[in-house]
Amino acid sequence: MPRGTPPLLFTMHLFYIPRVNANSLVLPEEESRHCVRVLRLAAGDTLSLVDGRGGWYRCRVTRADAKQCEVTCIEKIEGHGRREFSIHVAIAPTKNIERLEWCLEKCTEIGIDEITPLLCDRSERKVIHPERLEKILVAAMKQSLKAYLPVLHPLTACREFLRDHRDTLKCIAHCDAGERYSLHQRYIPGTNITLLVGPEGDFSPDEIRLALANGFLPVTLGESRLRTETAGIVACHTVHLLNALGS
Amino acid sequence: MPRGTPPLLFTMHLFYIPRVNANSLVLPEEESRHCVRVLRLAAGDTLSLVDGRGGWYRCRVTRADAKQCEVTCIEKIEGHGRREFSIHVAIAPTKNIERLEWCLEKCTEIGIDEITPLLCDRSERKVIHPERLEKILVAAMKQSLKAYLPVLHPLTACREFLRDHRDTLKCIAHCDAGERYSLHQRYIPGTNITLLVGPEGDFSPDEIRLALANGFLPVTLGESRLRTETAGIVACHTVHLLNALGS
Repeated sequence: MPRGTPPLLFTMHLFYIPRVNANSLVLPEEESRHCVRVLRLAAGDTLSLVDGRGGWYRCRVTRADAKQCEVTCIEKIEGHGRREFSIHVAIAPTKNIERLEWCLEKCTEIGIDEITPLLCDRSERKVIHPERLEKILVAAMKQSLKAYLPVLHPLTACREFLRDHRDTLKCIAHCDAGERYSLHQRYIPGTNITLLVGPEGDFSPDEIRLALANGFLPVTLGESRLRTETAGIVACHTVHLLNALGS
Repeated sequence: MPRGTPPLLFTMHLFYIPRVNANSLVLPEEESRHCVRVLRLAAGDTLSLVDGRGGWYRCRVTRADAKQCEVTCIEKIEGHGRREFSIHVAIAPTKNIERLEWCLEKCTEIGIDEITPLLCDRSERKVIHPERLEKILVAAMKQSLKAYLPVLHPLTACREFLRDHRDTLKCIAHCDAGERYSLHQRYIPGTNITLLVGPEGDFSPDEIRLALANGFLPVTLGESRLRTETAGIVACHTVHLLNALGS
């Protein structure tokens, strides 16, 4: 048995309601069941819910019904955990999809804004199930007590993504030869970044050429040869740490 | 089909032989089979092997036997990839052991020297299978082309580990209240570090007290509530990045 009382942070359960339109609302059936049957909350108890777009609501249970639990908002915080920078990782889904799932979970915990699964020349995996990935993002958001749900874009052809200009710092982490700087030498704290991570067999020379022609800067993520999913996590954390150091 | 030829880095297969005593050696059966049947190497072809203690050997196949493949060393590099700092992560195995396995794989890819599984007051998992974890470390070392195999220590009671003084910077990443600095504020590039990561329910107040009494500095790993296995990876990468920035 655990000794002592774990801190609040560990016991807190977060509910996710994408649209909070009124002061009073009814939790969906699964969340109602969790609230009443698992957490055993009763009328008068408080809970927290997030809308995935920065809204954090403190609520009070008004009707502890295991199918239709009713709550009333008593406090709203907007932009909870908003950052000065945004991270968009465009990454080729791994052959073993669990590796990508793991990457998305970890990036969500660390903090990421947008994810685009990329279809590359050397992609072995050409199909993903967005609903499953979406569920992982929601679970990781709740678990890490965040109010923002990362945006999961549809699977996009790498060439198409490259042509789609964005107003951010653009980097491509490839393993091909050629002059490259470390991500930490390229990134300036406070800036938004879009970073590309290739499949197990790397980006093709064509894709790398097209990326450079479209203003993507080639970067390395350190001394080690990292797997695709590790590269995604390391890139995400590098940007966070550089912002923490720079602020 | 992939276009073009992937760079050497992607096609390279590394063999692991813990003891390289002579100039000529016979690969173990599984490695022999991989060499001859899977990679289809023939007499005269070259391959690389590592000893897990920094030795990197370029070898030439002298007898392509699928059961007893014989090779001769033609070049030896000692201390391949040696670093100016060492990282020891002592971490409570997760309830779901796959999470710890992922953590060890990722830390090995990023670069770690020692790992101690910790038995804590609030550990839900009290048993591990070191042989399985060892296999994961070997695979990750080979995959990330490293010559050093991280040392996996036996499962150790947290209290015992805390009393065992070590000549490194010592940090404990806990989630309890109290004044703490970020790991990046505590760490000085070039120093060796021992960092403790607790179980899902965190370290107990007793363990935290004992850690502080034994010279461990309380640290945070950023703004987010991270899972145990994410904390291990983030800590490991933070130390690497701070060294890269500081050098």
